[in-house]
Amino acid sequence: MPDKQVNLQRAWRNGDGPGRPIMLAIAGDSAAGKTTITKGLVDSLGADRITSICVDDYHRYDRTERKNLPFTPLHPDCNYVEIMEQHLQLLALGHPILKPVYNHKDGTLGRPVLIEPREYVIIEGLLPLYSKLARACFDATVYLDPPEPVRYEWKIKRDVSKRGYTEEAVLADLEKREPESAQFIRPQRSQADIVIRFDKIEGRDPDEPLSATLLLRPTISHPDLANILTDDHREAMHLKLTRDDDGKPVDALHIHSYAPREITKDVEQQIWKELGVDEEVPESLGTIEAGKRSEPLAIAQLILLYHMFQAKHSK
Amino acid sequence: MPDKQVNLQRAWRNGDGPGRPIMLAIAGDSAAGKTTITKGLVDSLGADRITSICVDDYHRYDRTERKNLPFTPLHPDCNYVEIMEQHLQLLALGHPILKPVYNHKDGTLGRPVLIEPREYVIIEGLLPLYSKLARACFDATVYLDPPEPVRYEWKIKRDVSKRGYTEEAVLADLEKREPESAQFIRPQRSQADIVIRFDKIEGRDPDEPLSATLLLRPTISHPDLANILTDDHREAMHLKLTRDDDGKPVDALHIHSYAPREITKDVEQQIWKELGVDEEVPESLGTIEAGKRSEPLAIAQLILLYHMFQAKHSK
Repeated sequence: MPDKQVNLQRAWRNGDGPGRPIMLAIAGDSAAGKTTITKGLVDSLGADRITSICVDDYHRYDRTERKNLPFTPLHPDCNYVEIMEQHLQLLALGHPILKPVYNHKDGTLGRPVLIEPREYVIIEGLLPLYSKLARACFDATVYLDPPEPVRYEWKIKRDVSKRGYTEEAVLADLEKREPESAQFIRPQRSQADIVIRFDKIEGRDPDEPLSATLLLRPTISHPDLANILTDDHREAMHLKLTRDDDGKPVDALHIHSYAPREITKDVEQQIWKELGVDEEVPESLGTIEAGKRSEPLAIAQLILLYHMFQAKHSK
Repeated sequence: MPDKQVNLQRAWRNGDGPGRPIMLAIAGDSAAGKTTITKGLVDSLGADRITSICVDDYHRYDRTERKNLPFTPLHPDCNYVEIMEQHLQLLALGHPILKPVYNHKDGTLGRPVLIEPREYVIIEGLLPLYSKLARACFDATVYLDPPEPVRYEWKIKRDVSKRGYTEEAVLADLEKREPESAQFIRPQRSQADIVIRFDKIEGRDPDEPLSATLLLRPTISHPDLANILTDDHREAMHLKLTRDDDGKPVDALHIHSYAPREITKDVEQQIWKELGVDEEVPESLGTIEAGKRSEPLAIAQLILLYHMFQAKHSK
């Protein structure tokens, strides 16, 4: 018996995959913008270097079964959390997984798919930062924190157009989910290295891109924005030393919704230069949808990419 | 980064499941009798102490997709062998898995199921002994080796009555699979601690239970049959020191098809006594189907159970 244990542990320790990937978590409530921010990162590096998975696929019950259950998909008991943790650990050690698949269109659980880790892996979803074991798998962690009215608007728009719900049904669902959002989703905010809030500015054109505020916690090593940002950049963004809700010190980077591209581009170049990597800043950052750009989104994505590259090169 | 690795490995090393289970592999070609022998073992201990899984669920392609592929389900490339190995390792360390599901009735891949290891786990299927890493997960390994005419008869009977094929289709399938049986399935015979061959005896009633020959390789510690079996037992079974196909010494235990219950029962009691466990010999061993018993099957199952209990108590 000890032989068996030793053999297995040796196999785990050595791994036999392509080496350990850099893992980024993007947590947030339903329709908080996880897919949009993830897509830009995946597009910027390409499918051969980065893969993303959504941990909402670890739903334990399908839509029909959930009708008779006392909780919503936000509840950890409604998900195979232990298997999610196991798969995150496997990926973090460079192993492939056979990932379950939840079909958002018809609410069924389907045939699982093989996921092989790439150089970079993004894990997005409702509960990736829920447990200590899951959090241990990540090199950097993000929580998306739009104000609730913005998130409600996004959720109605998406669920009506893409998932076949009526507006009334989405609102009823949001109300039903609220206690579990408060209990399980929002506490993940305090576990993230970076909190990103896209918001509207009162009195401005509603079609204008949103502004972004990034809370940069000193739990990982951020680019030296205090030195990068000068008065030349004030029109686009500014950095402010502040206290988080819990009183802890944090840097808040605000990027204006109307930030001019030429200025954000200069900041992007300077952040990127700190990495010392032999690659250009990817062009595809900041895309909301085909033909629609957002400079605040581009800067937010660039900072996430910065952390992924930094983790890779400081290995 | 080293922190991450250390944390994860500590989590693996300690485990947090119910402790490591005893794992028994039952390998063999299609319709070699794996399900029948497994069912008796599971029934004898009950679902709270033992669980069994079939690793044919790790098929990579469904029946429709396989139509255009140059190999049959016997080929390792037709299966997620790496994921099978991973799941065997997880189970062997006491962790749950989310197991894929292949539906033999309609040939589709379905929603995966959670499997939590019990005290004992039986892994049956086409390829559980295919790789070194998979074999490292087992406490005892079995290969079912009926003569091809017996297996053909069993396969036709089952696939026609339970899986909706015609006899011609089954025969064509067997012919197509033969090269891969020879290349991937039958080599597992040499990797097993125990090889079990059920066979007919020329000139006897075809409805009589089959006789069994168990090759007991000295790779694990078998019950002391040389001392247990006396002249009183010759009517039911005998042990013979012989050489395997590869010339290596091996014990061959032959149990006659007509073995009388009172004699096999005495042998069972003596084998069981060697374990020194505070449990009776389970009554449900030897059942082929409701109301149909086979003493050779009962003895074969008892010896497997002996090894599972022995591995458990010598931990």
